[in-house]
Amino acid sequence: MSGASEFTGRYDVAVIGTGPGGVSAAITAKIRNKSILLLGSPDLTGKLVKGHKILNYPGLPEVTGDELTAALKKHLESLDITITEDRIASVLAMDDYFMMLGSRSDMPYEATSIIIASGVVADKPIPGEVENLGNHVSYCATCDAMLYRNKPVVVVGYNEKEEEEAVFLAGVCSEVLYFPQYKMPTRWEDGSADPAAGKAPIKVVREKAASIAQDPTGTLMNPSIILTTSEGNAYKSACIFVLRESIAPGQLVPGLETEGAHIKVDMQMCTNLPGCFACGDITGTPYQYIKAAGQGNVAALSASSYVDGIRAKAKAAQ
Amino acid sequence: MSGASEFTGRYDVAVIGTGPGGVSAAITAKIRNKSILLLGSPDLTGKLVKGHKILNYPGLPEVTGDELTAALKKHLESLDITITEDRIASVLAMDDYFMMLGSRSDMPYEATSIIIASGVVADKPIPGEVENLGNHVSYCATCDAMLYRNKPVVVVGYNEKEEEEAVFLAGVCSEVLYFPQYKMPTRWEDGSADPAAGKAPIKVVREKAASIAQDPTGTLMNPSIILTTSEGNAYKSACIFVLRESIAPGQLVPGLETEGAHIKVDMQMCTNLPGCFACGDITGTPYQYIKAAGQGNVAALSASSYVDGIRAKAKAAQ
Repeated sequence: MSGASEFTGRYDVAVIGTGPGGVSAAITAKIRNKSILLLGSPDLTGKLVKGHKILNYPGLPEVTGDELTAALKKHLESLDITITEDRIASVLAMDDYFMMLGSRSDMPYEATSIIIASGVVADKPIPGEVENLGNHVSYCATCDAMLYRNKPVVVVGYNEKEEEEAVFLAGVCSEVLYFPQYKMPTRWEDGSADPAAGKAPIKVVREKAASIAQDPTGTLMNPSIILTTSEGNAYKSACIFVLRESIAPGQLVPGLETEGAHIKVDMQMCTNLPGCFACGDITGTPYQYIKAAGQGNVAALSASSYVDGIRAKAKAAQ
Repeated sequence: MSGASEFTGRYDVAVIGTGPGGVSAAITAKIRNKSILLLGSPDLTGKLVKGHKILNYPGLPEVTGDELTAALKKHLESLDITITEDRIASVLAMDDYFMMLGSRSDMPYEATSIIIASGVVADKPIPGEVENLGNHVSYCATCDAMLYRNKPVVVVGYNEKEEEEAVFLAGVCSEVLYFPQYKMPTRWEDGSADPAAGKAPIKVVREKAASIAQDPTGTLMNPSIILTTSEGNAYKSACIFVLRESIAPGQLVPGLETEGAHIKVDMQMCTNLPGCFACGDITGTPYQYIKAAGQGNVAALSASSYVDGIRAKAKAAQ
């Protein structure tokens, strides 16, 4: 509002995901002179870091996953593209822009167009998870922790990064039950996270999440939700946080047309929502690096042309 | 038939075109253990050889056209993929395979599946060209020269490579009028190609081809066709050979569904003809290297799975 900078906090193009599709999209959008927000991990993608050889990324014969990651990072650096380390928990389509809530930022991000390149979700949702989302089931600790201040919560974590989220919740809630859905080394077995820092205890429960349901005995003033495990136990709490690397696309962006685990796109990588594009594994099989890179390029060109259209419209309306 | 070799002369996958789309398709088909025929030029593609920098081929920052060409060639070599230097003049869809007529081969090529990656045709057809194709208008000197033995023919050539075709025709026909549609250096201005070798004269006519029509004064025994030029002159001959780098897709494969200059494909790079796939610029905009490479990968996987299906059917029928 001060007019000091041209950048108003709203990016032209937000790219969600740093696999080959997202990186390719960011590169092409940058070359098209768009302001970009690239959201993901500084390691790019867990799928690529592995050591096996990739034989069919044309131009890079017998490249290993590590080498391709390094080459993509170098490419981003050569164009001064930085990665914002965050995970988007939900996206809202506004009139002519998108609002994104990140797990690691207090303020929502804003962008005129978005490109979803977050990969496929390997884990199936827990039965009852999707149905109860927003109703004592949450995908975002940062966003919703304050709603459960001084109340007991459950965290279903799908990878070790979620342990940080559990620690964060332990600073706000009265108790955290942590259900690791991966091979978690011994930790917090004494039932405490960091009592010295005044945090609530974290209890690790090594059981497999089986279903989620509202607690019929809960009251309006004291509602509760129940996680049932494959081991046959039921755990009541004020909220169940289900935390994974990526979120099923239909849950991420309300109204987005999907086909199973995939986002429906056309040849120009357009989804059914204007200004929302997708590329890479999330658009369907085959799951291939070079395919994702090619689609990222197309998505970025489509997004750039969409942004140009929105700008022209805004100018004409002035 | 002898059983001496497993290879019967019918390839699993024929890839027509050696741009990034065709190269990528060949690489992935090879990795999927398919026998492949890669048809194109040892220089890969004229579009790539130029010196300008390509900024958005992820993993190869600021690569020049020459460097990308070299990298793709190296990749082909690393997988023992050779290029068959030929230009396909027409493709016939048989029952469960395709027959391809090449300009530089006496025998047709055969493949169970084909991937068309021949790029976009920049030149518009000459008015009357498509309508009269096969009726004293030909795209292939090798295929049709013998039909015009000892008769005068016209060659409309769009690049210097076609001069070789004119020389070939001069060995068969009674006269060759050569219409270069490019900047052709002085050659054959004395009206002769190689009289010492017993060839017919080649006359260069530096005029722009404007339209093609049947000659109403031609007879059943002595039909003729007329090329009219922008300079207002009309040239009668027994056949007009229209020779360009690539042929409009609809003319190349009869029955192929097109949209303007492009082949219609779905997300899996399937055309309307079973076993026929396409990738790269010929499938539509944007015209981008990395997009072509990505689509080539998808086309190769679709073709491989089609070939597996045909094989399984053949086995079941035994």
